[in-house]
Amino acid sequence: MRLSELSRTSGVPAPTIKFYLREGLLSPGVRTNTNQARYGPGHLHRLRLIRALLDIGGLSLAEIGDVLAASAGSDTGLGHLPRAARQPALGTTRRDTEPRDTEDAHATDEVLALVQRQGWLVSPGDPAVEAAAEALAALLQLGRHDFAERLDTYAAAADTVAASDVGGLDRRTDPARATETLIVGNVLGERLLAALRRLALTHHLRGPVPLVGDTTPA
Amino acid sequence: MRLSELSRTSGVPAPTIKFYLREGLLSPGVRTNTNQARYGPGHLHRLRLIRALLDIGGLSLAEIGDVLAASAGSDTGLGHLPRAARQPALGTTRRDTEPRDTEDAHATDEVLALVQRQGWLVSPGDPAVEAAAEALAALLQLGRHDFAERLDTYAAAADTVAASDVGGLDRRTDPARATETLIVGNVLGERLLAALRRLALTHHLRGPVPLVGDTTPA
Repeated sequence: MRLSELSRTSGVPAPTIKFYLREGLLSPGVRTNTNQARYGPGHLHRLRLIRALLDIGGLSLAEIGDVLAASAGSDTGLGHLPRAARQPALGTTRRDTEPRDTEDAHATDEVLALVQRQGWLVSPGDPAVEAAAEALAALLQLGRHDFAERLDTYAAAADTVAASDVGGLDRRTDPARATETLIVGNVLGERLLAALRRLALTHHLRGPVPLVGDTTPA
Repeated sequence: MRLSELSRTSGVPAPTIKFYLREGLLSPGVRTNTNQARYGPGHLHRLRLIRALLDIGGLSLAEIGDVLAASAGSDTGLGHLPRAARQPALGTTRRDTEPRDTEDAHATDEVLALVQRQGWLVSPGDPAVEAAAEALAALLQLGRHDFAERLDTYAAAADTVAASDVGGLDRRTDPARATETLIVGNVLGERLLAALRRLALTHHLRGPVPLVGDTTPA
């Protein structure tokens, strides 16, 4: 199909598609003459993938580029995923400026102990260890000390979901698509879980004991 | 304390603090003369909150402004939380352009049925219903059909975690802080859960049955 048709079918405006082509997120079509190229179902699929990671996964275009590059290789891509969509915050990062090393180190120890209790075989240098430790350190610093005692509840829930994710993978998948399948499940599954947790929180907050300051109707 | 001391204690550069003051994210200090103001522990706490939501929660400054405004009222603030940090993507949004209405409607039905099976008392118009439906629709469209069959596993994990979150809230908390406490737990707890899920995924992917295309050492 031509670019105009690719745009119509995907719903992505032609200038946006051209931008993705220039940025290398989308591979070039097959040239039919100087001004035209033809695109196939692979382009449509890739466009949908880019839009889902962007709009729903909340990744930046740069992060999507990294993830797609990883998925072209044999890498599982999990290490390339961002902790969160970060803001550069006026040219500074927390790491450079805030004297929270002791608290961060304590939180890292807590997370590593948790990993051991769960029997998870992961590298202590896994970026997700640091991401979990940072979230925990911030929670503790902001007064949510209860999270330290509930780490195992969180880990057990994460383990149930992850085991089910891996069980749901179709092992006959085309190897070229296997990594992409994983990345899609990881990024979008994370958004799904977060949304369901928010629904469950809303439900439990409206339980028999009203929360101080909560005046929303039941 | 003076602005310079607030900067030193919090690790946030003075120009950044001045920017937050101008944007109204931080309330003004008490003026001591034309050029100076004094700041208290409340300012330090608020600065830490802003930085945690920004750096770890991945919220934008505009989103943080909305959340903080909600937390000043009696609102639980959950409805103000973003689905994900979104990119404007060259002036267009998926909703305006992509013809995915049927799939989205189907996913919304699936999520509402799930909510009913879980017995969650939430409004069908809750933004988190839409967020979950969007993530599910994208997963299905990108070939992860297995997620449809595993929705209950996801919901049960979300419910366990949310019930534990609400149980962990200190109900004697200062009402003025209660909403903030909730928001912190929601945004940062989400990042904690996502990081733990990623660790669990890494572990389960290295299980006895190697994944097609996965050549990372066990």
